[in-house]
Amino acid sequence: MSPSPLTDFSRLCVHTITTKPWVIEEAMDRYAAADVGGITVWRQWLEGRDPESIGEKLRSRNLEIVSLCRGGFFPSDSDAGLAAAIEDNRAAIREAAALGAPMIVLVCGAVPGQPLEDSRKQIADGIAAVVPLAEEHGIRLAIEPLHPMYADDRSAINTLASANEVCDRLDHPLVGIAADVYHIWWDPDLADQIRITGEKDRLFAFHVCDWKTPTSDFLNDRGLMGEGCIDIPGIRALVEAAGFSGFNEVEIFSDRWWAQDQDHFLTEIKKAYLEHC
Amino acid sequence: MSPSPLTDFSRLCVHTITTKPWVIEEAMDRYAAADVGGITVWRQWLEGRDPESIGEKLRSRNLEIVSLCRGGFFPSDSDAGLAAAIEDNRAAIREAAALGAPMIVLVCGAVPGQPLEDSRKQIADGIAAVVPLAEEHGIRLAIEPLHPMYADDRSAINTLASANEVCDRLDHPLVGIAADVYHIWWDPDLADQIRITGEKDRLFAFHVCDWKTPTSDFLNDRGLMGEGCIDIPGIRALVEAAGFSGFNEVEIFSDRWWAQDQDHFLTEIKKAYLEHC
Repeated sequence: MSPSPLTDFSRLCVHTITTKPWVIEEAMDRYAAADVGGITVWRQWLEGRDPESIGEKLRSRNLEIVSLCRGGFFPSDSDAGLAAAIEDNRAAIREAAALGAPMIVLVCGAVPGQPLEDSRKQIADGIAAVVPLAEEHGIRLAIEPLHPMYADDRSAINTLASANEVCDRLDHPLVGIAADVYHIWWDPDLADQIRITGEKDRLFAFHVCDWKTPTSDFLNDRGLMGEGCIDIPGIRALVEAAGFSGFNEVEIFSDRWWAQDQDHFLTEIKKAYLEHC
Repeated sequence: MSPSPLTDFSRLCVHTITTKPWVIEEAMDRYAAADVGGITVWRQWLEGRDPESIGEKLRSRNLEIVSLCRGGFFPSDSDAGLAAAIEDNRAAIREAAALGAPMIVLVCGAVPGQPLEDSRKQIADGIAAVVPLAEEHGIRLAIEPLHPMYADDRSAINTLASANEVCDRLDHPLVGIAADVYHIWWDPDLADQIRITGEKDRLFAFHVCDWKTPTSDFLNDRGLMGEGCIDIPGIRALVEAAGFSGFNEVEIFSDRWWAQDQDHFLTEIKKAYLEHC
């Protein structure tokens, strides 16, 4: 399945963590100079900054703020932990509102040894607890299913089916899904689950990178699009057939790329975007 | 869900790779001295040996030969590669017959960038091609679904559902499934799929180890039972409820444990087996 080729960068969004060496001011200038259309801001990039003022600067550079990354990490083995997670997610919603981000990506969390179904229940309860504030500010909450290799301590939601199940439980128009090819490409149920996600109007975000062979690190060895085995155009075709028309967000954690000149990396991202997405 | 506690080692099987520093002669003496009930022999341990004579030695030490590990790796992007894989699997069947192993574990294979459904078709075709020889020798073939983090180059079969689907296609009493907790523990569909596997009389093997947090290596950082987050007794309860009454096979790849004294490791395996399986 082939989607329409990408011919410009209007739907290219870059996550600030992709160019980790750049602080937010540097990232916004470089992205804007490179004609990148959108930016997803990681919360660490707002530390010591006024989110409202950063939001104004991003908009003045014609960068669309796609989302704030990330909320989540709801599960805990203590009541205090559960309450703290809810408060932190409320803080994220206020930050997103100040920044002018319409969406927060949720890496939902897990507690090693705690049954995954218990964690999913805590995740659903946690999201339900913050939905009223999200409503107040009109912020969408996108559950990102994480690869099963993160089921121990990062997310108890490891498939689109599982994310859809939690969304069904919550049944709220502000609660949807962020689909990242890195986490879901292997799923034998991928096509059906993307279709279902679209039918339910909850496909909120689409993230791209690649899976290298071999991969040497569980977190920070993602590939640039084209460096690995993921059929990114095939998955983009599925999400677009499911009605998605938002940004293609480049989210790459890579010690290898972070060690290189980031202007060069951004050039390579743009090339790979046109050739392999 | 709690299974009956394990109180002896009659159903404990150890894979030769678990105690990698020991050659087959050393492994068989140490396992027998430790009252281990069964052994799964990795093919590398037979290099330069006569499998028939090794089989006799194992039986003379009252070690039940549980399986030969491993066949598989069927997918290829060339006809020559596909044919070579089939020949290698036939060789494995002859080795199993000579050794006296009633079963071969299949790590089914994948080719980076080749669609996983194409690889699964090649796997099904490859197994079908070797089934006649397996029938001749009465050798069971156990498809082991591998964790999705191995979907790039080790196995296109990454869930029990996917393994069941390939078994359904082949529909042969000698073709079944090896369920390894390391690969399947995260699966939200685990309980149903184990039940289905049992109902279809194809739950051939059960492998145990643990998932450590953090895990530092994609291959060789498995945990001893109890060192990680997997609810091994819970999964054993599921497989036993599904009718499985075979060996609990300890299959641990661990640079950390291999660097220690292997007699000490075997003692720790026995402790962990009683306490955490």
